[in-house]
Amino acid sequence: MCVIGAGLIGGSLMRAADKAGRAVWGTSASEETAAEARADGFDVGTDTDAALRRAVEADALVVLAVPLPALDGVLRRVDAVAPTCRLTDAVSVKVAVADAVARFAPRARYVGGHPMAGTAESGWGAGNAGLFVDAAWVAAADDGTDLDVWADVAELAWSCGSRVVPAASDEHDLAVARVSHLPHLLAAVLAAVGAGGDDDLPLALAASSFADGTRVAGTRPELVLAMCEGNRDALLAAVDDALGRLGAMRGALASTGGLAATVRAGHEGRLRWAAARDPQPVRVRRGRTTPTELREIGRRGDAVVGWA
Amino acid sequence: MCVIGAGLIGGSLMRAADKAGRAVWGTSASEETAAEARADGFDVGTDTDAALRRAVEADALVVLAVPLPALDGVLRRVDAVAPTCRLTDAVSVKVAVADAVARFAPRARYVGGHPMAGTAESGWGAGNAGLFVDAAWVAAADDGTDLDVWADVAELAWSCGSRVVPAASDEHDLAVARVSHLPHLLAAVLAAVGAGGDDDLPLALAASSFADGTRVAGTRPELVLAMCEGNRDALLAAVDDALGRLGAMRGALASTGGLAATVRAGHEGRLRWAAARDPQPVRVRRGRTTPTELREIGRRGDAVVGWA
Repeated sequence: MCVIGAGLIGGSLMRAADKAGRAVWGTSASEETAAEARADGFDVGTDTDAALRRAVEADALVVLAVPLPALDGVLRRVDAVAPTCRLTDAVSVKVAVADAVARFAPRARYVGGHPMAGTAESGWGAGNAGLFVDAAWVAAADDGTDLDVWADVAELAWSCGSRVVPAASDEHDLAVARVSHLPHLLAAVLAAVGAGGDDDLPLALAASSFADGTRVAGTRPELVLAMCEGNRDALLAAVDDALGRLGAMRGALASTGGLAATVRAGHEGRLRWAAARDPQPVRVRRGRTTPTELREIGRRGDAVVGWA
Repeated sequence: MCVIGAGLIGGSLMRAADKAGRAVWGTSASEETAAEARADGFDVGTDTDAALRRAVEADALVVLAVPLPALDGVLRRVDAVAPTCRLTDAVSVKVAVADAVARFAPRARYVGGHPMAGTAESGWGAGNAGLFVDAAWVAAADDGTDLDVWADVAELAWSCGSRVVPAASDEHDLAVARVSHLPHLLAAVLAAVGAGGDDDLPLALAASSFADGTRVAGTRPELVLAMCEGNRDALLAAVDDALGRLGAMRGALASTGGLAATVRAGHEGRLRWAAARDPQPVRVRRGRTTPTELREIGRRGDAVVGWA
């Protein structure tokens, strides 16, 4: 398996796959990072072309774990050196990556991936083999998906300790807008309102509801911006949903003073989330279960854990 | 000290004051609750008039710890039996309680209070002597506040392990709207958006940002409604602030795609909150420091911890 990028995600992937007994090599754009990885015993250089050629020889899966701004350049190398390779990625938003692949490496056998794990840290040193344990790992299941490469992605996820959630690329982006990106924006708004008074009395009276509701506003702004701004269209839909609900609540509070509809809908949503904590484990037929069937598993909130 | 109400807050107050060596008696509207309290060794009956008469004889502080709907009735008994007693309360919103006191027990020497502590539980059995330890306890410092009774309230808070945050009643209500009530409404909106899609894919992909951002949506809706609906005017101002920020963000996302202003303001707010975790301890002169001076302490985010 060939991993392009040796930061938090790429570095954790290499460690987890190595621990699972897979042959792993990779590259980093930074000689310093590559040296760190080599010092930890990993086969990591800075020559992307050489790493990709080796993937072609071994018919190995190539995993892109680079920041979004670096993606197009790497895809151009894929198209030049390993044009029909088995390809997946661990970059968060799926439609944008799929579009870039279609443009810059259109012959690649690409299946999008998104391990739902991370920390506030970054870099090779922050990685660890356990990062993906018990996480959901999205494997894109669009019409026309190459089911042989989809199986490679699923097996990689399982070897890292994750469960596989199949999803259409666009449905993935809408879903993470609702549950990963919107939380950051609402936390930012709440933190700004709490700190936005004329004095510090509100902050002096803030207790656990404010602490929890603003926790992710403590994330480095660059990370939040990269994540949210890359998912603009889907995020607009999620923000509009939130604005609609907040506006309706504002109207009810101003007219009748009643908040029951808002509070009860939120309580039911939280209970639904709590129930969804326990996904049904599903087994599918390797290379045979269709993208349509796979997507239905993710829509039910369930996860693929192995082959039937 | 006479505590009217023996639920979570009243019951915890009795235990904490008793532990601090104070003479405490109380009442409950429920014979069952009173019996529970007596079984735990507390002097709790159901005869409010008798408890209030005893407060008159001892010139003791009367603490109201009843639900808002029961307040007017209790204040009528105060006016009938202990019309000029030293009076405070532990009911959350301060303007509403001050208005009720002015209407139903206008001769009482009333100073509003609000210990910023609680759990999702209720009832005598849920109470404990440590509930208020390290909490902020608001003691209302309005123009004309009776500084002798203010000192009683401060000493009660200190004996329960709390620090005292002086605040004008209306500023308290605006502050808690921002940092206690708005978080519940934003959590409800986020939970509803996450669970509001056509399927369970978003919930299957929800991670810690969603879990934290919706935690208080798990609170029993009746508790949230009682808290938020009782603070309607102040809450409208907080909701409008949030709506304005969210709407501006929506506009920026749709036009330039940029979220930097929102995310950075949120990050700064969270850092300001973190810095405010460490209030400066202030000592004031008993019965001499004026309400204006006291309010400034709270506005700075500091707290009163003893007499100078």
